[in-house]
Amino acid sequence: MAYYVGIDLGGTNIKAGIVTDTGEMLNRSSIKTNANRPMEEIIHDMGKLALTVIKDAKLDVKDIKAIGIGSPGTPDNKEGVLVYSNNLPFNMAPMRKLIKDIVNLPVYIDNDANCAGMAEAVAGAAKGVKNSVTITLGTGIGAGVIVNGRIYSGFNQAGSEFGHTVLVSGGEPCSCGRKGCFEKYGSASALVRMTKEAAEKNPSSKLNQVIKDEGKINAKIAFKAMRMGDQVAADVVDQYTDYLADGLANAINAFMPEVLVIGGGVCNEGDPLLKPLQEKTMSRPYFGPGVKKTVIKLAEMGNDAGIVGAAMMGKSCVDDGIEG
Amino acid sequence: MAYYVGIDLGGTNIKAGIVTDTGEMLNRSSIKTNANRPMEEIIHDMGKLALTVIKDAKLDVKDIKAIGIGSPGTPDNKEGVLVYSNNLPFNMAPMRKLIKDIVNLPVYIDNDANCAGMAEAVAGAAKGVKNSVTITLGTGIGAGVIVNGRIYSGFNQAGSEFGHTVLVSGGEPCSCGRKGCFEKYGSASALVRMTKEAAEKNPSSKLNQVIKDEGKINAKIAFKAMRMGDQVAADVVDQYTDYLADGLANAINAFMPEVLVIGGGVCNEGDPLLKPLQEKTMSRPYFGPGVKKTVIKLAEMGNDAGIVGAAMMGKSCVDDGIEG
Repeated sequence: MAYYVGIDLGGTNIKAGIVTDTGEMLNRSSIKTNANRPMEEIIHDMGKLALTVIKDAKLDVKDIKAIGIGSPGTPDNKEGVLVYSNNLPFNMAPMRKLIKDIVNLPVYIDNDANCAGMAEAVAGAAKGVKNSVTITLGTGIGAGVIVNGRIYSGFNQAGSEFGHTVLVSGGEPCSCGRKGCFEKYGSASALVRMTKEAAEKNPSSKLNQVIKDEGKINAKIAFKAMRMGDQVAADVVDQYTDYLADGLANAINAFMPEVLVIGGGVCNEGDPLLKPLQEKTMSRPYFGPGVKKTVIKLAEMGNDAGIVGAAMMGKSCVDDGIEG
Repeated sequence: MAYYVGIDLGGTNIKAGIVTDTGEMLNRSSIKTNANRPMEEIIHDMGKLALTVIKDAKLDVKDIKAIGIGSPGTPDNKEGVLVYSNNLPFNMAPMRKLIKDIVNLPVYIDNDANCAGMAEAVAGAAKGVKNSVTITLGTGIGAGVIVNGRIYSGFNQAGSEFGHTVLVSGGEPCSCGRKGCFEKYGSASALVRMTKEAAEKNPSSKLNQVIKDEGKINAKIAFKAMRMGDQVAADVVDQYTDYLADGLANAINAFMPEVLVIGGGVCNEGDPLLKPLQEKTMSRPYFGPGVKKTVIKLAEMGNDAGIVGAAMMGKSCVDDGIEG
């Protein structure tokens, strides 16, 4: 049995665990990121956390083949550097070098959305499938594209930034500088915006009442009010799934994956989200007769995706003989 | 020196030529497709045309390593079958078998847009680059995605259908059944539509006068009237390049190619098209600091792209040990 350390670096927590070569997670541990401190300190704690999970699993460093790190932002795995991150204080952060000072193992870095895609491909909804795309619906939209069992990230390791493909040309301004990006229409935040707009336009709706009762607004509200029979809420969900279906169709038409996985908290809604999405995305005849169709599934790896995916990304680099 | 036959199957003409392993075309010959006849007859003529170009180049069949065919529609290279084509009478056409009956060589089939991408990658604007995307602006929009020097076509060989990614959700109805596809806003046909609409809205414009003078409308008119100083025409070009830039940005954000090539007749406009496109596509900060940027170039292979690309696609299959 070969073992890997997966590290899931987030804005709030750093999580790590030991993962087997088939994607089974043996243990996990986490610490606060405290993102306001110098990047060297954060990286130091990541190395220490790797040692912790190795020890907790009653393993030695020599039992571990590699450390994989899933991080927000744009990594450069060749140089072992995190080039930059929007939400964390990393600028050309020499992660490989600093981690190796603490744990002398090969260290690999990739984007967190890519790692989520790898986790689903190895052990989740796209298990056993060579080409898959995992779209994570959160504050923004992350995409992990797996081609021939490997993360696809373009010539500059920046891709796929599928959340920043334009879905509504000239539409909502996006943080990336363009207008009408997919993530402004298909993310959980977009659903919240649509919910808020509909509630304001329809003050006597159940939707508006649910928001008042709960004292807050989030991505669950529209589904909840829809289940209570509210038409305004049903229309919000319909509008959201229209956009989301167009975005998923784009991922299919771009990459033609065998399985398209959708993840993120909003996917906890289950069938009321998945069924119309499948219907709206797949009913168009754009595949042509006789052409095999992509299957849309819900993510299965949940909170483990980051750790397992980072570890399996590390494994794929070891398998490919990439220097870490 | 190794030689390959490239066959470019079109709705009007079938073209073929001998291509060297570095992408140099030694000769070419063409015949009418006569698309209304049975598919067996068309395929028979393709085989005969292969023999013609081999003979014309003073080569023997044994000098040729493979035949590559670029075809509209969806091929299944594994089975050697053209699954279907919108514009040609092919349904599960057993191309490999029927061609081999005439010329007993390995036969490979791929989509024509993919072959155009392969041609640019081997011998054109993306020569020497491992990851590139070639977008061809014609009646529709074709895309050829090259990853690690190989055509990327998804799990079902249908991708990338990048022309059918949604750019304007809920917009112009597309032949694929969806609304607002990229090809309804970025193709040469889309430019013609925008030109026509603007001329009708502005009957006293130079744009309208040019259309009347020429007695026809095509994708060149707006550029021509713009060169004559017409503001209405300049606005059409501005609108068209806005949409096209969003579509190109989508291809970049999806695939992160080192070079993005644009081809098709409209690219003959040169800098008045390319400069604003580069500016509009690349000026947004979506790459993040320190991340290498895609370069946008005009296609270089012109009419040879189909033959050279088909031949080089065949070469890549031979090199990969794929059975033909």
